[in-house]
Amino acid sequence: MSMDIRRRDLLKAAAVAALGGVVGRVTSAADAPLSSWNDGPSKEAILDFVRTTTDRSSPRFVPPEQRIATFDQDGTLWVEHPMYTQVVYCLERVPAVVKAKPELASAEPFKTVLSGNREAISRLSTDDLLKILAATLTGMSVDQFEVEVKQWLSNARDPRWKRPYTELIYLPMIEVLNYMRANRYKTYIVTGGGQDFVRVYSDKTYGIPCEQVVGTVGGTTFGYDKEGRPFLTKDPKLLLNDDNAGKPEGIHLMIGLRPFAAFGNSTGDRQMCEYTTAGDGKRLAILILHDDATREYAYGPAQGLPESKVGTFTQALYDEAKSNGWRIISMKNDWKQIFAE
Amino acid sequence: MSMDIRRRDLLKAAAVAALGGVVGRVTSAADAPLSSWNDGPSKEAILDFVRTTTDRSSPRFVPPEQRIATFDQDGTLWVEHPMYTQVVYCLERVPAVVKAKPELASAEPFKTVLSGNREAISRLSTDDLLKILAATLTGMSVDQFEVEVKQWLSNARDPRWKRPYTELIYLPMIEVLNYMRANRYKTYIVTGGGQDFVRVYSDKTYGIPCEQVVGTVGGTTFGYDKEGRPFLTKDPKLLLNDDNAGKPEGIHLMIGLRPFAAFGNSTGDRQMCEYTTAGDGKRLAILILHDDATREYAYGPAQGLPESKVGTFTQALYDEAKSNGWRIISMKNDWKQIFAE
Repeated sequence: MSMDIRRRDLLKAAAVAALGGVVGRVTSAADAPLSSWNDGPSKEAILDFVRTTTDRSSPRFVPPEQRIATFDQDGTLWVEHPMYTQVVYCLERVPAVVKAKPELASAEPFKTVLSGNREAISRLSTDDLLKILAATLTGMSVDQFEVEVKQWLSNARDPRWKRPYTELIYLPMIEVLNYMRANRYKTYIVTGGGQDFVRVYSDKTYGIPCEQVVGTVGGTTFGYDKEGRPFLTKDPKLLLNDDNAGKPEGIHLMIGLRPFAAFGNSTGDRQMCEYTTAGDGKRLAILILHDDATREYAYGPAQGLPESKVGTFTQALYDEAKSNGWRIISMKNDWKQIFAE
Repeated sequence: MSMDIRRRDLLKAAAVAALGGVVGRVTSAADAPLSSWNDGPSKEAILDFVRTTTDRSSPRFVPPEQRIATFDQDGTLWVEHPMYTQVVYCLERVPAVVKAKPELASAEPFKTVLSGNREAISRLSTDDLLKILAATLTGMSVDQFEVEVKQWLSNARDPRWKRPYTELIYLPMIEVLNYMRANRYKTYIVTGGGQDFVRVYSDKTYGIPCEQVVGTVGGTTFGYDKEGRPFLTKDPKLLLNDDNAGKPEGIHLMIGLRPFAAFGNSTGDRQMCEYTTAGDGKRLAILILHDDATREYAYGPAQGLPESKVGTFTQALYDEAKSNGWRIISMKNDWKQIFAE
């Protein structure tokens, strides 16, 4: 915990230092922003957006309280391929759920998950997956859920890189988060993933506090335990599916302001980018194309890349982005480095 | 707008100044906090809470990122009697709604509202009121709604004080907000009122940005206008009734942290106070009793005060507060002054 506090204090100190600048931005060469980005139009687009919107002499200056930047998570801030990390979590929680309710062991889809047959698991229907999500993400108190996710994250390892999932975050995007915050942008995660799930690690991992995580979210129910102490139980009732049109709807629900910058990587981010760029003044929409099979993964199907079960980037989205002036980031060409060492 | 920015900058400067202090709090005698509070146990309880939780040498020190304080609005930050301001808004919007849909003129409950018969209006059923709320709070774009509320607020006057509603805010509570923020508490409104309604004026009025307003909230629907521009329409679908048990549920939805301090004034704030004080460490729950018929209003029915249609403070709540160590504020005895001049 003390590590986290120190990290936050450093980030805040950086923000306060930036306040001292005449135009409210970091100008020191020692702090050259976006250093793991290759020079080129993508990097320049981000720098130019921040310069323009934070320069008080610019006609497109944005007051600090309106500086909202939203970031999709899966495939935008961390690896999503071949399976969303939260889905891995849910599948790996099944044994514990079955232990508590042994009658599930012989019931589908739990039986298939317990079999460990990857081929069969990958063929589970959406309805089956929803059953697994409901069984592993709801029914417990919000405090208990936090404990379960924390514990899993500290032990789980990505099979390809043998590293904790929270280390598989994109260094160039962490630099964008820091750069925007140093320029008094408030950074939000806006994810199709579960709001409560992402909140468990968002501060430590991205420097984004839990109240700035907008995600798919279910209701909770207030009640009392046997000793009369109040607690909240996670319900299977969906309040917001924070994907596609749900992203601007979630942004309004949780923030109430239209973002000036939005970052995504799939068709699920389309409406968020449309909503963001439809506002007045200078706006920025960025889509990350996973085109680096060597250092990460390559999938589309935009530009002839292989289709993927996660983070679909269609050619139609690619074309809309091009025609609207949204910027498409090539992981292969725009990023010097993918992960922090 | 420039006035607002300057005000925010001042507030931020105060917060930054506070960061310079060894224990992170304002100690200058010139800035004596809560100056419109009479000395006594109520004022001391607030000062003591902030001192204890922000003093690094205290075993009950709270790290800044966990410093959450939640404030009910109606009756806690501004006048709610004899009718919630938002209900006044809805009633006064009826003529405009009927103008746009003339067929409503002869339909109840709109006919009664248009009649101007106060007695008949005060007898409208909850179902009738919900119809009026749905007709005046939903169906338009979120941008249009903001324009309508802003316009109304600038013209509407409270009949007793002949002042804009946003001036009928309690000076002692504004001091609490400022004092807590200067000590790095993040202040949230948690109101049974409409989230989008309160967001329109929360920053100007209380220094609370719209993303820190938690309220009763309906869904929105993303769509495109004739020119293909995206916008959000306010739906009559209720997502959260942010009152009673809905308050802790809303706090979890929108913040994700348990507050360390909660301020309210009615049975609708009971569960928020319970949830807040059930957490570890030092917690603060405050309930404001409206017992000042001369300077504001007196209503309960706690302590034999007259019953009220709004902000019910029952004797049962009074007794629960006393037995749980929540502090009851007497407006008559604890506050030197009610409103800013």
